[in-house]
Amino acid sequence: MNVVITGGAGFLGKRLALELLGRGTLGGPDGRPRTIERIVLVDVVAAEGLPDDPRLRVLTGDVADPAVLADAIDADTGSVFHLAAIVSGHAEADFELGMRINLDASRLLLERCRALGTRPRVVFTSSVAVYGSAASGAVRDDTTLAPQTSYGTQKAIAELLLADYSRRGFVDGRCMRLPTISVRPGKPNKAASSFASGIIREPLNGVESVCPVGPDTRLWLLSPRRAIRCLIDGHELDAAALGASRNINMPGISVSVAEMLAALERVAGPAPLRHVRWSSDPLVERIVASWPAAWDTRRAEALGLEGDASFDEIVRAYIEDELQPA
Amino acid sequence: MNVVITGGAGFLGKRLALELLGRGTLGGPDGRPRTIERIVLVDVVAAEGLPDDPRLRVLTGDVADPAVLADAIDADTGSVFHLAAIVSGHAEADFELGMRINLDASRLLLERCRALGTRPRVVFTSSVAVYGSAASGAVRDDTTLAPQTSYGTQKAIAELLLADYSRRGFVDGRCMRLPTISVRPGKPNKAASSFASGIIREPLNGVESVCPVGPDTRLWLLSPRRAIRCLIDGHELDAAALGASRNINMPGISVSVAEMLAALERVAGPAPLRHVRWSSDPLVERIVASWPAAWDTRRAEALGLEGDASFDEIVRAYIEDELQPA
Repeated sequence: MNVVITGGAGFLGKRLALELLGRGTLGGPDGRPRTIERIVLVDVVAAEGLPDDPRLRVLTGDVADPAVLADAIDADTGSVFHLAAIVSGHAEADFELGMRINLDASRLLLERCRALGTRPRVVFTSSVAVYGSAASGAVRDDTTLAPQTSYGTQKAIAELLLADYSRRGFVDGRCMRLPTISVRPGKPNKAASSFASGIIREPLNGVESVCPVGPDTRLWLLSPRRAIRCLIDGHELDAAALGASRNINMPGISVSVAEMLAALERVAGPAPLRHVRWSSDPLVERIVASWPAAWDTRRAEALGLEGDASFDEIVRAYIEDELQPA
Repeated sequence: MNVVITGGAGFLGKRLALELLGRGTLGGPDGRPRTIERIVLVDVVAAEGLPDDPRLRVLTGDVADPAVLADAIDADTGSVFHLAAIVSGHAEADFELGMRINLDASRLLLERCRALGTRPRVVFTSSVAVYGSAASGAVRDDTTLAPQTSYGTQKAIAELLLADYSRRGFVDGRCMRLPTISVRPGKPNKAASSFASGIIREPLNGVESVCPVGPDTRLWLLSPRRAIRCLIDGHELDAAALGASRNINMPGISVSVAEMLAALERVAGPAPLRHVRWSSDPLVERIVASWPAAWDTRRAEALGLEGDASFDEIVRAYIEDELQPA
């Protein structure tokens, strides 16, 4: 069968593709393992730096264009990982673009699956941003959604659509609500949470990083390794195990910025910390403060999904995966 | 200023228009009372049976057509009451129509307001159907949304859009979650809750009515009189009083079908009951069972919104409003 990954040029999309190539199989629409014949990486820019594998197809196009989705998703598509998104800070700054990619593209993707009638598994990535500041204490999977950003609103809407399309049997959806991913490789992006990777990544590379929030700011984090693992494990879950809700809050760890930097020092010594500069950004502070800093992960754990053990482990994994020669 | 009512040919839309004509004023975007110069009743069929008042304009067209919305809503529009909807049973049977009217039209309406830049007050009617069966016990305003119907999904999405458009200052939105309205005048419709009016209305008119659910089925009800009152009171609330959420669960009363029929007998004697026939409809039973039968109305009450005192009062109001000569 074929697998489609939107946002396929992003670092999670590419990592997921590599992991799937290594596995060679995924559960098909009937749940039984099927050989992956092709992985289609859809993104507005061409996915680069991938191995020369005949199973990979790079499709460059706008994920909110029905023709691109029709090209990417066909009758042989058993699984769609929908990772494409306009990140939080960007969707707040560009309302129309966020609506187009985070809402319209998600709906068009579901409509394409409905039109095919093949009921593929669809794994959506959603976000802690769906909750908003209305949630006090640890949020549960069933805590009410009161997003305080356009990004969170658009993700919450996509969740509702995925649930209804699943209930009606148009797709077999799973919505994985991701913590903030840290440590992302590469460069800063327009996510309000970009600093959560930058304050570790840049100092380890000897580059200055500006922290826009105070040291007591708490974040809910998951490493790229564990995120990929959770996306695949979430895909492989039996629909019956999900019960009435398609949403799963992925496990993570709750850490403050100060604790993150202390872990960096424990793992890499005191030198990197000299590259962290503090400069408050009220917009980022407001957005980050609207996210809950922890959530109740009993549902994810009962479903067999695992987070990281500590932020020290996350820093070590980043160094192993990105800074050491293969 | 101008007022727009979508679903203006429906019974709530027409009653609201009559009430507004009588009042003559509504709070403007700045909250101060403004004279109503015009009321535009938009609906796919022409609103009929209205008084000959120069302030009324009947606009017949598709509320999901941007040109119709652009015609209806202009720079002088201070208030929009968005009542147009495809009802629950209909949206379940016709998925595409429900998406078009309940979701697309709501979004296009908000987009029209955004394009004008005039920040009108927008009153949305939403529904108990947004909750779904995940809610046990009395639902609160902040109980999580887990709709189990496409109608509930579409309404939940429209709520999220209204909240984000309000947060960004594009509109000043208020989302009034209506209980099942009973007793509606007129004929049965495609709402799964149609019987909640039919089992009272038809017997009072000497016509047979089929009850598709069992006598123990509990409903959460509001009379048309109180619904109109709540829509206007909700419109007049100061935005600051709403706090972080734009959603208000309107007050209602929790009654079983058996209790409704007992009230009918108390008010109108035993004769009408002979016109009720019982015949189970599994689809209606499933949809109605997915709605909570009661909710916590402390927020609405704190905001000054009032429901009915008893179902006996509701039956008496129906007889006064619809069956007695004016």
